[in-house]
Amino acid sequence: MERALEAISFDAEGLVPAIAQQHDTGEVLMVAWMNRDALRATLAEGRVCYWSRSRRALWRKGETSGQVQMLRELRVDCDGDTLLLLVDQHGVACHTGRRNCFFRAWRDGGWVELAAPLVDPAALYGSARESG
Amino acid sequence: MERALEAISFDAEGLVPAIAQQHDTGEVLMVAWMNRDALRATLAEGRVCYWSRSRRALWRKGETSGQVQMLRELRVDCDGDTLLLLVDQHGVACHTGRRNCFFRAWRDGGWVELAAPLVDPAALYGSARESG
Repeated sequence: MERALEAISFDAEGLVPAIAQQHDTGEVLMVAWMNRDALRATLAEGRVCYWSRSRRALWRKGETSGQVQMLRELRVDCDGDTLLLLVDQHGVACHTGRRNCFFRAWRDGGWVELAAPLVDPAALYGSARESG
Repeated sequence: MERALEAISFDAEGLVPAIAQQHDTGEVLMVAWMNRDALRATLAEGRVCYWSRSRRALWRKGETSGQVQMLRELRVDCDGDTLLLLVDQHGVACHTGRRNCFFRAWRDGGWVELAAPLVDPAALYGSARESG
């Protein structure tokens, strides 16, 4: 596992951005950050764990909401400074209750919402938002 | 166009990460950075322009290599701090001559190359690498 980390260039804060992509549909679900421990946990557990910059803690995706991401494959880019996670997303990836976080598109001079929430965030989190 | 920028949270250095995804196949091609001027140029020209952190200059993707990215749609995530660019990539996105930058996968305890270069980088760039 440490050999996996050797290929990765973590930034000055020890972080690297990670894109989560649904493995079978190609849908880009979200982007979050990982530090070394988050990546170790992800590889060890097969379940995606990020680093929450706001809470300054490991963030096992779905720990509050149940909307976990199971890792199918880890990829790294040419410069080693961005990760691509092929995942199987259970439920919704976005804290707003949408399947993915990129639900706003710039069309004809305005932002258009492409998707409505599939679930009520309050049902996922109660009063505690799970976030990066 | 300024209304597009209002929805985006640029970081302390005035940058936001942008994922380029091939619009019809879903292939994640690369990740680079944009500042406000790069995004303005992208929207005005319909051709993707990044900010090169290494050269500290606007970087019109393909300006040296000819491997341009035409913008099909701009999307922004829930927190406004990551962009998803649906693009039509001409040729190869990666400076190594591969179609996308995420050509290394972690499998069975080692990094595996998933793709060989389609073109010789020297043919694309000569001695000048175009980069972020």
